[in-house]
Amino acid sequence: MAVFNEVNKVQYEGPTSKNSLAFKYYNPSEQVQGQTMEEILRFSVAYWHTFTAGGEDPFGGAVMQRPWNHLSGMDLAKARLEAAFELFDKLDVPYFCFHDVDIAPAGASLRESNKNLDEIASLMKDYLKTSKTKLLWNTANMFTHPRYVHGAATSNSADTFAYAAAQVKKGLELGKELGSENYVFWGGREGYESLLNTDMKLEQDNLGRFLHMAVDYAKEIGYTGQFLIEPKPKEPTKHQYDFDVATGLSFLQKYDLTDHFKFNVEANHATLAGHTFEHELRTARIHGMLGSVDANQGDPLLGWDTDEFPTDMYSSTLAMYEILKNGGLGSGGLNFDAKVRRTSFEAVDLFEAHVAGMDCFAIGLKVAAKLIEDRVLEDFVENRYSSFKEGIGLDIVEGRSSLSQLEEHALSLTEIPNYSGKQEKLKATINQYLLETMQSVRA
Amino acid sequence: MAVFNEVNKVQYEGPTSKNSLAFKYYNPSEQVQGQTMEEILRFSVAYWHTFTAGGEDPFGGAVMQRPWNHLSGMDLAKARLEAAFELFDKLDVPYFCFHDVDIAPAGASLRESNKNLDEIASLMKDYLKTSKTKLLWNTANMFTHPRYVHGAATSNSADTFAYAAAQVKKGLELGKELGSENYVFWGGREGYESLLNTDMKLEQDNLGRFLHMAVDYAKEIGYTGQFLIEPKPKEPTKHQYDFDVATGLSFLQKYDLTDHFKFNVEANHATLAGHTFEHELRTARIHGMLGSVDANQGDPLLGWDTDEFPTDMYSSTLAMYEILKNGGLGSGGLNFDAKVRRTSFEAVDLFEAHVAGMDCFAIGLKVAAKLIEDRVLEDFVENRYSSFKEGIGLDIVEGRSSLSQLEEHALSLTEIPNYSGKQEKLKATINQYLLETMQSVRA
Amino acid sequence: MAVFNEVNKVQYEGPTSKNSLAFKYYNPSEQVQGQTMEEILRFSVAYWHTFTAGGEDPFGGAVMQRPWNHLSGMDLAKARLEAAFELFDKLDVPYFCFHDVDIAPAGASLRESNKNLDEIASLMKDYLKTSKTKLLWNTANMFTHPRYVHGAATSNSADTFAYAAAQVKKGLELGKELGSENYVFWGGREGYESLLNTDMKLEQDNLGRFLHMAVDYAKEIGYTGQFLIEPKPKEPTKHQYDFDVATGLSFLQKYDLTDHFKFNVEANHATLAGHTFEHELRTARIHGMLGSVDANQGDPLLGWDTDEFPTDMYSSTLAMYEILKNGGLGSGGLNFDAKVRRTSFEAVDLFEAHVAGMDCFAIGLKVAAKLIEDRVLEDFVENRYSSFKEGIGLDIVEGRSSLSQLEEHALSLTEIPNYSGKQEKLKATINQYLLETMQSVRA
Amino acid sequence: MAVFNEVNKVQYEGPTSKNSLAFKYYNPSEQVQGQTMEEILRFSVAYWHTFTAGGEDPFGGAVMQRPWNHLSGMDLAKARLEAAFELFDKLDVPYFCFHDVDIAPAGASLRESNKNLDEIASLMKDYLKTSKTKLLWNTANMFTHPRYVHGAATSNSADTFAYAAAQVKKGLELGKELGSENYVFWGGREGYESLLNTDMKLEQDNLGRFLHMAVDYAKEIGYTGQFLIEPKPKEPTKHQYDFDVATGLSFLQKYDLTDHFKFNVEANHATLAGHTFEHELRTARIHGMLGSVDANQGDPLLGWDTDEFPTDMYSSTLAMYEILKNGGLGSGGLNFDAKVRRTSFEAVDLFEAHVAGMDCFAIGLKVAAKLIEDRVLEDFVENRYSSFKEGIGLDIVEGRSSLSQLEEHALSLTEIPNYSGKQEKLKATINQYLLETMQSVRA
Repeated sequence: MAVFNEVNKVQYEGPTSKNSLAFKYYNPSEQVQGQTMEEILRFSVAYWHTFTAGGEDPFGGAVMQRPWNHLSGMDLAKARLEAAFELFDKLDVPYFCFHDVDIAPAGASLRESNKNLDEIASLMKDYLKTSKTKLLWNTANMFTHPRYVHGAATSNSADTFAYAAAQVKKGLELGKELGSENYVFWGGREGYESLLNTDMKLEQDNLGRFLHMAVDYAKEIGYTGQFLIEPKPKEPTKHQYDFDVATGLSFLQKYDLTDHFKFNVEANHATLAGHTFEHELRTARIHGMLGSVDANQGDPLLGWDTDEFPTDMYSSTLAMYEILKNGGLGSGGLNFDAKVRRTSFEAVDLFEAHVAGMDCFAIGLKVAAKLIEDRVLEDFVENRYSSFKEGIGLDIVEGRSSLSQLEEHALSLTEIPNYSGKQEKLKATINQYLLETMQSVRA
Repeated sequence: MAVFNEVNKVQYEGPTSKNSLAFKYYNPSEQVQGQTMEEILRFSVAYWHTFTAGGEDPFGGAVMQRPWNHLSGMDLAKARLEAAFELFDKLDVPYFCFHDVDIAPAGASLRESNKNLDEIASLMKDYLKTSKTKLLWNTANMFTHPRYVHGAATSNSADTFAYAAAQVKKGLELGKELGSENYVFWGGREGYESLLNTDMKLEQDNLGRFLHMAVDYAKEIGYTGQFLIEPKPKEPTKHQYDFDVATGLSFLQKYDLTDHFKFNVEANHATLAGHTFEHELRTARIHGMLGSVDANQGDPLLGWDTDEFPTDMYSSTLAMYEILKNGGLGSGGLNFDAKVRRTSFEAVDLFEAHVAGMDCFAIGLKVAAKLIEDRVLEDFVENRYSSFKEGIGLDIVEGRSSLSQLEEHALSLTEIPNYSGKQEKLKATINQYLLETMQSVRA
Repeated sequence: MAVFNEVNKVQYEGPTSKNSLAFKYYNPSEQVQGQTMEEILRFSVAYWHTFTAGGEDPFGGAVMQRPWNHLSGMDLAKARLEAAFELFDKLDVPYFCFHDVDIAPAGASLRESNKNLDEIASLMKDYLKTSKTKLLWNTANMFTHPRYVHGAATSNSADTFAYAAAQVKKGLELGKELGSENYVFWGGREGYESLLNTDMKLEQDNLGRFLHMAVDYAKEIGYTGQFLIEPKPKEPTKHQYDFDVATGLSFLQKYDLTDHFKFNVEANHATLAGHTFEHELRTARIHGMLGSVDANQGDPLLGWDTDEFPTDMYSSTLAMYEILKNGGLGSGGLNFDAKVRRTSFEAVDLFEAHVAGMDCFAIGLKVAAKLIEDRVLEDFVENRYSSFKEGIGLDIVEGRSSLSQLEEHALSLTEIPNYSGKQEKLKATINQYLLETMQSVRA
Repeated sequence: MAVFNEVNKVQYEGPTSKNSLAFKYYNPSEQVQGQTMEEILRFSVAYWHTFTAGGEDPFGGAVMQRPWNHLSGMDLAKARLEAAFELFDKLDVPYFCFHDVDIAPAGASLRESNKNLDEIASLMKDYLKTSKTKLLWNTANMFTHPRYVHGAATSNSADTFAYAAAQVKKGLELGKELGSENYVFWGGREGYESLLNTDMKLEQDNLGRFLHMAVDYAKEIGYTGQFLIEPKPKEPTKHQYDFDVATGLSFLQKYDLTDHFKFNVEANHATLAGHTFEHELRTARIHGMLGSVDANQGDPLLGWDTDEFPTDMYSSTLAMYEILKNGGLGSGGLNFDAKVRRTSFEAVDLFEAHVAGMDCFAIGLKVAAKLIEDRVLEDFVENRYSSFKEGIGLDIVEGRSSLSQLEEHALSLTEIPNYSGKQEKLKATINQYLLETMQSVRA
């Protein structure tokens, strides 16, 4: 445990601390709504961004200064694994997530790749025995290798489809072995580049078949993790089939998969699809499909996935509001699918960035909990829709109405009163709660 | 018939004509794929843009120079009606569409509004007797009046819901009386401005209830037109529940409405949602839900609905490709939900703009038909996905496969061959077909 | 003074007040950096959004419930004027702004319009004598009337150009008479709809000539207000010539106008141009051209000018940071070019919205002042660029260097050290300052 | 010459050819407006996309199947060089372009990098002796290496600034030696990631100093190529200082560099900045600053630089219109800064893509030439602005006017006539010219 020797254990020091390597708002053992912050927030570190990524961008090479940069192959994989559990421990996070190729190098053949995975998984299992940190979810990377250039489950090549299936099979076995609480499908190349050369119906049907096979195999081996779909509209593919939560819902309904899947909602994917983060969370929530969260943020002026560490307190507050209204995330968590900026290439930035993100969601949690406790939005909304609690409104909601009955009612009306939606006031109230709640934290 | 006396009947004069008031490519009686252009294209004029709109924009007042500008009330409505059938005749279009408030002024009460509608509908019925032009679809405007400030079927006011229901009831009755072939729901205010004050679940449930009532009432009165949902992501509302075709599909599945509805796909709404026009058409098509089309185009650099007359031959070609592959539009048509630019305020621009749009789709039809006749895309696609026609691919498609079987296959593979998707070549081929097809037209 | 009788004088009640008609953070007489909040912030009410606008949108009619809705013509103008000074007084704002047509109805001729203006201006002068509220800036509306359909100073019609010139002449005279501290040019239609029909060079040359005439006339009559250009990239026009601050700078340099103009930077126009608000402020600031601010905010997911009241504390903090670094706004101010949401149609919303905006900027001011006082960014930036304070860096900055000298230096380097830009840490620090500064406010 | 042995010399076969490896519209020796197509279009191949790039994207590895994939270091560089001149010859292109690191591997030191460059440059010189293909422009890659993580000429590190200067010095020497007709500056990292840590003024001042040093050194060594700035708004950097042509113009004016620089306008950079390609060309043209063109196209629905081969005939027509009105490109050319799609990974796609792009611009040239010959837009525009050719309009244009004179004129007007801008008709005319011009080509 000496990889990140510049960093000690990150601990709660309170809002006035000037130490950038201390939590100012995240206090894992502090109670909120009858649970600890740690239990509610279920933070998770993303293996790929934190241990595997080099900071490349479309116009630049690797820049990340990492203690393992001189290594390669399985040595590199082992060094990263050691560093990972050191970082998990120092950050005191309860969860992490990975793709298969994050933790072990791809081999020259599927067999060799699986062997590499087995070796690392065995080591990981040992770490898991003594670490408090558990595996939130795992997944298979079915987008980086050239074989997936045209997609995986939606490839035009049956061989590629088969290879992807083999990777998922291994992933489910790994999930079972390592106790992952969820298994995620992000279809980075499940979509199309051009309609001119694409059989969209066959591709979507095949994706449905693929997911059913995964469900069947999980049942077969007794893997009980929750399956999750992670919507994203585009990038790398021009158009991805899991565009957003609503599109995913349409797909799952059509292919009779709603009982087996929930959504892993990512903030930056939401904005790329033209939605707010909270919109996607709300949509998933009201359909009972909110499974887990990729906690990051995008830049609204940039058209690509920036995967920034979350620091916007408005966003974290509204996200935590949806999560608390959902009764929490169940087996899901808040996974930092976030990368330090390319210009934040020092190892210590990894810690400062996670601290920034964890504090941001701790703030969001406390503010959202206070808003709910005071029924700020609940009372407003309940009153706003009160016309559906009696008379003609109740008839509508209870299915006793018809166009004819409603026309009769409408003919009897002289004027229809409407009341202000009061967005400005509500937004000012959110500001006040942000500032006031955190004051009471301190007092 | 003297309103547009500057314009004679618009007729096909062929590509070399320099007359901007003649069709150069649209020849209604010309055969394509065994039908006439008129039968396939089913062009429709949008009453609102062409007869009602004044050219206002968020920073400017009415500018449209119209022969009826000096009139008001029912006199105005009657003058527009006369002008409409004159324009339909001169353009020789087979269809038109309207919202209730386009054809008759709203009265001081629902009763008076309905009376106005009845009076105009009676006159319209007379015109329809002698005109070749028929009613493609009608709808109710449930977004302009202040009572709809918070939505119609998704309003927080039960009275507003009832009023909207009454308007739809009347709309269905009008549809029956005037023989409309479809009835459209565009939910311009069915969505939300802010999640802070919105009960999204109640609103969506109510929208489901509303649509069921419409289905029931149509059955009750024997109205047999096709119901259509017209997706749009935003504007005027920040977020609309019918965001795009996939979102609409999700909604219709959830509320058990798929048997009763199809989609009215609009080009500019597609692009505002982050999709191409052809993507939305394809998505509707492969689900058997392509009902009708609002034929216009947007400006990809502007973030609002510009509703331009369609002049992009690429877009009309790819749209007509989807429509021909769909076996046509059934009871739907190509409705020009398009407005002359604010700076094209002369009456003659109405004709030139329709000519531009009709010619553009006539070109698209001929190019798409030739592409299909030559199986340019069909052969490429069929070959590209051929691995699913035999062996492991066929097993997958026919549901005989499993992760275990596929892993076994993947383990046996040494290399997975992939082949270029050839987008550049395909795009060059489209260019060649555009230029060459229209040459053969001429020859 | 009985128009808004539901609202008493809005006063500072402190952060814990639950009164939505009280300032929680804006305390006009509180000192910050040696001046009062009122003196630094120089808030201004926009006449058009608050007194003239009806809440229309592209799909909806007027909804605003205003006490003067039953009036018309000059009676309406006088009622609004009375209401305006009542609202200014109740909000205790030091400034307001208007376009000519906001305050007086356009007449049937230029002469009549000017007469209407004179009559209202005379009344306004009386109000100004007894009110603390002064005129921050005035301008001419050269975009709503049909004569401006193709632009004003960039119209293809010389008559239209002349009419616009006459409006500006009157505007400068009004500005002089009423003591406006600035005169603004926003060129809503100074741009083009299509390059196909546009002589861009002539139009830009004419705009340059137009502005020179205004400068000359101001000198002639002794009007000493600061001239301001307000950049906006688009809407209503497809492309506006004052796209953003940099484009404006290019224009002013080319036409030798930099000595006479500064910029009126609007938050929502910045984002429509693809920039942050603070980017535009910074760009104007480092060129010595930051004149005034239109304080509002847009919705990053919507592609049009939403002109929302500012409630984002991040944005107000970064804006106030630039303004404080600029040494304040000089003769400019923070004008709420913001409109209540269409769904906030009650009169009381006007007050709640202004309170929300004023509080938001008061927070921004206090946080920015504290950041500057603690030199949080200053020290970081100074250290970051320290290599330009000595050696080769100083040679570069002082103009003593050349490619040859620099190559020699580069050849001597073994490694170039770089250091993290620490965005994550800086963003977390901003969060901490937001929460902590406002805590100290309370304590 | 055996690298691309699957491809013979690409030749003009005419529009009906079905050979995807033949020009259908580009006939280098065909005369248009008194010059050959080759002389006007001045096509150039981009070394980086065609010979260096592997097809990586943010989520995927290298996929390009290239004959030199097994090589590395200088062997790789030499193989690419040989292949390059083979491809130039087979495509019969007159020009190519490169960055320093495209043609020779970076060494462990600046000295070694320069040595590698010298070795390759010497070989390249031999190729140039016998090839018809010449060097359109060269440039230095100052964005890929980690030393440029914070920028090059705008880095916070003086050492980095010096290293960049050394690269440019070498670039100018190479340009002189190899006869490049232009030298380009694209500042991919000349901008900022966050204003929180950026001294924007110092950075822009330094960029100005850097460019002056380049101008001075070129003079010193007698390099006479045209300097070009290539604007881009963002990517990789969040905000680049050369946002668009107007921003570049502002910068060049401020730093007194307008006499030494023109613009290299890229289609996809234009659209990322919110402009059309033709807007950027027009803006550069009317300021006498149109130097060269990066001919590609973006996807209007994607927010990143897709650098697609140009296949949109509308865009190429409007671009060629601006270029012809500019009297051609002078020492510039049409450089295909375009990459085959990642899914077009076969070597033959390189040829098909260039054929697609060259044909597209050949079509654009012929259509634009015909439009100009027939004065389609010229006559329309001249007539549209005719009011500035006499009377008050002429006074305005000739600087004889004032607000007072114009007011007098405006007061005398009873009505201001305006005429339709006729965009719909003009767009239909463009369609007709596209189809008809290419018909006459064939006949």
